[in-house]
Amino acid sequence: MIMEIAQIDVKPGSEADFEAAVQKAVPLFKASDGCIAMELQRSIEKPQRYRLMVQWNTLEDHTVKFRGSDAFQQWRALVGPHFASPPEVEHTQQAVQGF
Amino acid sequence: MIMEIAQIDVKPGSEADFEAAVQKAVPLFKASDGCIAMELQRSIEKPQRYRLMVQWNTLEDHTVKFRGSDAFQQWRALVGPHFASPPEVEHTQQAVQGF
Repeated sequence: MIMEIAQIDVKPGSEADFEAAVQKAVPLFKASDGCIAMELQRSIEKPQRYRLMVQWNTLEDHTVKFRGSDAFQQWRALVGPHFASPPEVEHTQQAVQGF
Repeated sequence: MIMEIAQIDVKPGSEADFEAAVQKAVPLFKASDGCIAMELQRSIEKPQRYRLMVQWNTLEDHTVKFRGSDAFQQWRALVGPHFASPPEVEHTQQAVQGF
């Protein structure tokens, strides 16, 4: 299992609209192959900065299947207009489980 | 509930030692007031980059109580020698629950 962490800075004043757009897009992720979980976190120190966190079964479920899907086009149509800059996307794997 | 996201770049070659040190430090977090969960994620694109993710009841549980505790000193003694640079710490709150 891998985690996609997308750091997204939104245009000033578009925070509420962006959050509503992400909420609307939840079913797109839920219906995607290999998508296990998603949530949106908002920075306390920089309130225009968000982190979309999505858990995928495999890296390819995100980078190949999802990005090549109609769902991705719909996702970008919903949230893209609010981006202040291109999202910075990284993938991670759990190294220490903790608790 | 808030999430602490600490981006940590480690010295080349110290990855295994760093992960073992974080594993050893799990009980320090577990015993800390208001600490709900912690895990360590490792970047796939930049394998020397980690993200420590810790859930706290309140911001102050991290920034005041934990940072002022003996546990924090022990944590830093364990992991600090492996840092390539000072960690970049941010706090977030959930904006969209997702699934």
